Amino acid sequence: MDSSTNSGYSTPGKPFTRDTNYINDRIVADPQAHRAADHYEYNTIGTLTTGLTEGAEAWPVEAGRYRLVAASACPWANRTIIVRRLLGLEDAISLGTPGPTHDANSWTFDLDPNGVDPVLGTERLQQNYFTRFPDYPRGITVPAIVDIPTGGVVTNDYPQITLDFSTEWTAFHRDGAPNLLPEEHLDEMFDVIKRVFTEVNNGVYRAGFAGSQEAYDDAFDRLFTAMDWLEERLTTRRYLMGEHITEADVRLFTTLVRFDPAYHGHFKCNRNKLIEFPALWAYARDLFQTPGFGDTVDFQQVKDHYYIVHHDINPTGIVPKGPVLTQWLSDHGREDLGGSPFGDGTAPGPVRQGEGVDPANNPLYASKV
Amino acid sequence: MDSSTNSGYSTPGKPFTRDTNYINDRIVADPQAHRAADHYEYNTIGTLTTGLTEGAEAWPVEAGRYRLVAASACPWANRTIIVRRLLGLEDAISLGTPGPTHDANSWTFDLDPNGVDPVLGTERLQQNYFTRFPDYPRGITVPAIVDIPTGGVVTNDYPQITLDFSTEWTAFHRDGAPNLLPEEHLDEMFDVIKRVFTEVNNGVYRAGFAGSQEAYDDAFDRLFTAMDWLEERLTTRRYLMGEHITEADVRLFTTLVRFDPAYHGHFKCNRNKLIEFPALWAYARDLFQTPGFGDTVDFQQVKDHYYIVHHDINPTGIVPKGPVLTQWLSDHGREDLGGSPFGDGTAPGPVRQGEGVDPANNPLYASKV
Repeated sequence: MDSSTNSGYSTPGKPFTRDTNYINDRIVADPQAHRAADHYEYNTIGTLTTGLTEGAEAWPVEAGRYRLVAASACPWANRTIIVRRLLGLEDAISLGTPGPTHDANSWTFDLDPNGVDPVLGTERLQQNYFTRFPDYPRGITVPAIVDIPTGGVVTNDYPQITLDFSTEWTAFHRDGAPNLLPEEHLDEMFDVIKRVFTEVNNGVYRAGFAGSQEAYDDAFDRLFTAMDWLEERLTTRRYLMGEHITEADVRLFTTLVRFDPAYHGHFKCNRNKLIEFPALWAYARDLFQTPGFGDTVDFQQVKDHYYIVHHDINPTGIVPKGPVLTQWLSDHGREDLGGSPFGDGTAPGPVRQGEGVDPANNPLYASKV
Repeated sequence: MDSSTNSGYSTPGKPFTRDTNYINDRIVADPQAHRAADHYEYNTIGTLTTGLTEGAEAWPVEAGRYRLVAASACPWANRTIIVRRLLGLEDAISLGTPGPTHDANSWTFDLDPNGVDPVLGTERLQQNYFTRFPDYPRGITVPAIVDIPTGGVVTNDYPQITLDFSTEWTAFHRDGAPNLLPEEHLDEMFDVIKRVFTEVNNGVYRAGFAGSQEAYDDAFDRLFTAMDWLEERLTTRRYLMGEHITEADVRLFTTLVRFDPAYHGHFKCNRNKLIEFPALWAYARDLFQTPGFGDTVDFQQVKDHYYIVHHDINPTGIVPKGPVLTQWLSDHGREDLGGSPFGDGTAPGPVRQGEGVDPANNPLYASKV
């Protein structure tokens, strides 16, 4: 959901405040039921309540109708790529992938042939926002789901998108799709997800885009307090909620995998590198080596995105060559904690043709070259 | 020797080239002999040849006459503070300490009462340069040695200053002063010093001030090639030249101690942190814990210097809170390699009153609070 309409990301004297106004439409299995239900209050972690926010619309689940536009570079978009793959929604929902270095106004399809998304026919995601709302005033963010017939954006409400993949798209889940929202853990899981969001997922941005030393110092302390809590939690648990992978792990993973390549240096989240947290680092490698996680990560795109787009905090635009990535493949030893990644389910199959990562940018692929 | 007359440190499209023109006067035990000797060619690591560069002057060694102006933040100045302390020259040569965040024109005595150096009576080191050369055209750098009676800078030729401390100021060395220039190792030592200078001491600046991705990539590769060479060399040797500390160790130490706090993030020297090199990191801790080394380091001043002064590569001026520093005190185990830091000599005594580091900014002191 990185915004692309900021000319500067850090505002002198100000803490960083994320714009949490999104297009809150939902794609659901039973639109009538959602329209009839009570409105739910929008929050930054999504909801499992049936209903719609004020003024939002319910769209029907329909295979082939929607295109998920998700830049690999972006952690919020990366969540949707992972969940789509874990649940096996590739045939139901196609994937468009903007390049990592959007311009001042929009993410662009600069990696596609002729710079045009082959399904949507647009060069810039902004066109799809404007098709829906001609005077759309906010940031052109990913992930966004586009209605292919009309070319308009249906939703960019990233915390809700993955939850709806799990709960509304069940008819199209693959055989063996894991249950990422286990009933018995939901209450605790949403508490964990909320703390991970405010302190870690968004915490790194609060540090990096802080407009004053005080705001940065505060964000730094909050971030590492939460990292220490996660380190302790994951010392005795294989995954955040225990035995199996859940939505909470997806949300933490996309920040952890960017921690050393981007947040440690670029956002000054440098009390320690991720690799200095024994449990967190082993946990991150465990997920990275699990099908559906690491195979969605393009480290070069991640670095290009942060270091090139945020011109106001890295004016030279020079992208670091480090860190070393091969250590992501090292033994993590987490099997000793028991558990099984997919519970009663199974691992997803290989990444679909055309959706892979440049082998040079991910050691999982490079090792197979 | 960080220049203070640059408005920008990184020039778009250009590699970083250090201005190596200095005031090449020397302070020597026998000025007549130096004047009579053949001129030596200036080089970036200094020389042990008797003689002067073209147009330079020889000044007499004289206790109490000169003031070493050396900002604790600056690695090149830090060398002179360390060698002065190892050799016990505190009574012969006094120390003036500019603050870490010089302005566009000069290092300043902003940490001293009323912002005035108590001996020189100046607010800005630039005044002492102008007293010597009214139209001095180059950077106002530290370290600089000032002639107290006239207030003019005698030399800012940092690679020569520490060599002359060892060879010309012998009459004032303390009992037990180590021999930092052991005759039997000199040829190899200057080869090591040269490679450490071009690839590491200056290599981090070449990475950080690179004006193009290509120049940065090249500097990065050269730096880490040299770091790997040092890692290998120090796996079997306690110190760079073997059993005892030499000038070469002083020159490497001041870069290593700044590596994780400044160069890793700010200069994008991020293939690995120093703490990821087992031998180099243990070596750095060994030196840090040796009297005369770590006790001269103010980590906060180091970070303030780099992150605040280099506005063009860190426009927000926000200074990272990390990294953790307590690990500098951990056991290094280097005694197993044998050797003794000071050879036939002894360790220097405590840091002089008034020359100490803020206890909050160095774990050696903090641990004693």
